[in-house]
Amino acid sequence: MTGKKLIEEKLKKAKIEIGDKIRIDSKTIKKEGVLMPHHLFSDDDVITIKLDNGYNIGIAVDKDTKITFLEKHKQSVKKTKDIPFDKNKPTISIIGTGGTIACYVDYRTGAVHPASSAKDLAFAVPEIFDICNVKTQVAFQILSENFEVENWKKIAHIVAEELNNGSKGVIIPHGTDTLGYTAAALSFMIKNLTGPVVIVGAQRSSDRPSSDAELNLLSAAIVASKSDIGEVVAVMHNEISDTCNAIHRGTKVRKFHTSRRDAFKSVNEEIIGFVKNGEIKLNTDYKKKAKGTVVVDDKMQTDVAMIYAYPGLKPEDIPDKKGVVFIGTGLGHVPEKILPRIKELTDKGTVFAMTSQCIFGRINMSVYSTGRDLLKAGVISCKDMLPEAAYVKLMWALGHSKKHDEIEEIMRKNIAGEISTRTRSDTFL
Amino acid sequence: MTGKKLIEEKLKKAKIEIGDKIRIDSKTIKKEGVLMPHHLFSDDDVITIKLDNGYNIGIAVDKDTKITFLEKHKQSVKKTKDIPFDKNKPTISIIGTGGTIACYVDYRTGAVHPASSAKDLAFAVPEIFDICNVKTQVAFQILSENFEVENWKKIAHIVAEELNNGSKGVIIPHGTDTLGYTAAALSFMIKNLTGPVVIVGAQRSSDRPSSDAELNLLSAAIVASKSDIGEVVAVMHNEISDTCNAIHRGTKVRKFHTSRRDAFKSVNEEIIGFVKNGEIKLNTDYKKKAKGTVVVDDKMQTDVAMIYAYPGLKPEDIPDKKGVVFIGTGLGHVPEKILPRIKELTDKGTVFAMTSQCIFGRINMSVYSTGRDLLKAGVISCKDMLPEAAYVKLMWALGHSKKHDEIEEIMRKNIAGEISTRTRSDTFL
Repeated sequence: MTGKKLIEEKLKKAKIEIGDKIRIDSKTIKKEGVLMPHHLFSDDDVITIKLDNGYNIGIAVDKDTKITFLEKHKQSVKKTKDIPFDKNKPTISIIGTGGTIACYVDYRTGAVHPASSAKDLAFAVPEIFDICNVKTQVAFQILSENFEVENWKKIAHIVAEELNNGSKGVIIPHGTDTLGYTAAALSFMIKNLTGPVVIVGAQRSSDRPSSDAELNLLSAAIVASKSDIGEVVAVMHNEISDTCNAIHRGTKVRKFHTSRRDAFKSVNEEIIGFVKNGEIKLNTDYKKKAKGTVVVDDKMQTDVAMIYAYPGLKPEDIPDKKGVVFIGTGLGHVPEKILPRIKELTDKGTVFAMTSQCIFGRINMSVYSTGRDLLKAGVISCKDMLPEAAYVKLMWALGHSKKHDEIEEIMRKNIAGEISTRTRSDTFL
Repeated sequence: MTGKKLIEEKLKKAKIEIGDKIRIDSKTIKKEGVLMPHHLFSDDDVITIKLDNGYNIGIAVDKDTKITFLEKHKQSVKKTKDIPFDKNKPTISIIGTGGTIACYVDYRTGAVHPASSAKDLAFAVPEIFDICNVKTQVAFQILSENFEVENWKKIAHIVAEELNNGSKGVIIPHGTDTLGYTAAALSFMIKNLTGPVVIVGAQRSSDRPSSDAELNLLSAAIVASKSDIGEVVAVMHNEISDTCNAIHRGTKVRKFHTSRRDAFKSVNEEIIGFVKNGEIKLNTDYKKKAKGTVVVDDKMQTDVAMIYAYPGLKPEDIPDKKGVVFIGTGLGHVPEKILPRIKELTDKGTVFAMTSQCIFGRINMSVYSTGRDLLKAGVISCKDMLPEAAYVKLMWALGHSKKHDEIEEIMRKNIAGEISTRTRSDTFL
């Protein structure tokens, strides 16, 4: 017997429940702490305990590991409290999807369910109820690297339903890995937003002293309940200190660091605004919330690939798909020996679009011969779109037309703030 | 008759030579200016003239276009001058490869050959001879998006030959698109450098008022002739103004903007130093030049691909190659449904390595279950390497061993400054 079953067996035998203080003696480590629920993203054979210093650690359990009961958990008073409702406060919806920020609640509360239920949130970040009333539901619970188009669609429909049912805004806690892709996808899929849609993540779960989960979530709640933004935005740490959150446009936000809390940056434009000391400061350049009904337009062609250009890329590396987004070099180039393959596939109906691995700046395929040849072959310039925004947009465009010129028209038109009208010199690194 | 032939015919008829003042009347434009040599990267049917305001423009010529002779060119005195040689100055080598910086000489001199011959340089940037003596040769002349492994090898051998024949340093003018890839490739291929190897490019050719070609080239000459660096470095604009050039480590430099002159940044570490007002300021953290003989070790396995990870990436998108470098999400993840394909190919001998599309930060596959599964499947962490550096390094590692554990050992070892020993908080955006 190994894994989950082994752990369950050992805990049952010692009559240990979640929240009890225990001692673990394994071959490699001996520690005392409070038993936490199984961590969503831990391996099956790992048990998590909270140490006295507040850190959670995971310990691998095998048949020789000794688990000893030390002390019964103290029932939390807060846990049985009812969720407050204040009719003078706006009501927002939280749609759980998984990721590090969801672990937050899991870790701090000691609650059995790792997702963010309203009770979990009340217990973990009670300050949120000073801002707004909260309706919650869990759409699904997955690591964001495993997201698929179907996940975006499901979220889009729940968002529309919640706003159409009267919520002032929506918060979507999300893993940070593909947060930018989801933000862009929802930007294209949801029309006529009657309230802010705020995607929020955390780079560090709350068991770590410098977690960004709490501030990010509270700032997200402020934006969702108090702003007049009618766009999909991402709210994340703006700087390394715990004082300010940036509000990024969903089609312009990108993760630039594997671990820093201020990993997210807007590309080729200013941030929409920021939240500091509980106050929102907005720039003028954003879409205000609409009146009427939120509509979902989620027709997507999933047979699309992103291809990174590099020296040595070969014609056979270009797949036969309905759409291909190149992450080209410089102003929008690929090795010229790829051209015959592009022409061959274009003749078969593949639509090619061009973005740049420079990330910052704008595609311009008119400067050098390689670019002009690509334009002649029908490759569509994605202007200053992020590669991830161009990818979901091409899926969406292919979902709406089968004609190259119509698809090109969609790609060239600014639909959700993905194309900046002018190049600013103050929006670079 | 169209294209090059048509233009030649018209010029011959009107007895026009390069450097003559002419008038062009086409359907769309009427302009006077000095006839420039055919631009390397222009289409065949385009004629280039320099206007009175200093701008060069290209005009498409068809059979109805009128070209009129206005004035004979004035023979330049400088052009016939001998290249100066000062035995008290160090001698460096310039190895031409093409790109925007090579157009510089082409445009400014009016010389027929677009590559940087010593005479062209003397005529165009005579200040270089205040710094050093110059030996030049043209390795080849191609747009950098068309570089192949063979191009890297050829440059590596010329670099070694020039240094071993007594040059104090080498300058490699290069297109900016794949400058970072070449810089990394040469860093792995050339051992025991007895002088600085300086790759330099320009974002704007010299016919544009704000060209970076001249300053970049002069700063490169200063670094190549006067520094004691024994590494491959890139010298490019450090800021938007025309005052300072950064010296970047070859394995750490990346192009981050499609058009700005300060597009190149060092990732996860400080720049090695900078050149300001003709003076070099270096940090302590660089490899000093070696004594003895420069050696080329250019065994490379070219059957390697870079694969960008994104939501919707499918198992069949992972090609059957000798090596694959993932540009994963976050700390180093790909969708978990790719795992069986990775295992299948690993069993067949493919070596997988992991970098991050975050670009900044460090791979850590021990945090989440996806990463741990990837580690178990044999995927090698590239730590804080740039994806481009990891790509050429994997080619190089596969060129040196066929055993997974030996390849992994090479990949994990810091060979050319590609892995930073510590993560600095001051080297982010």
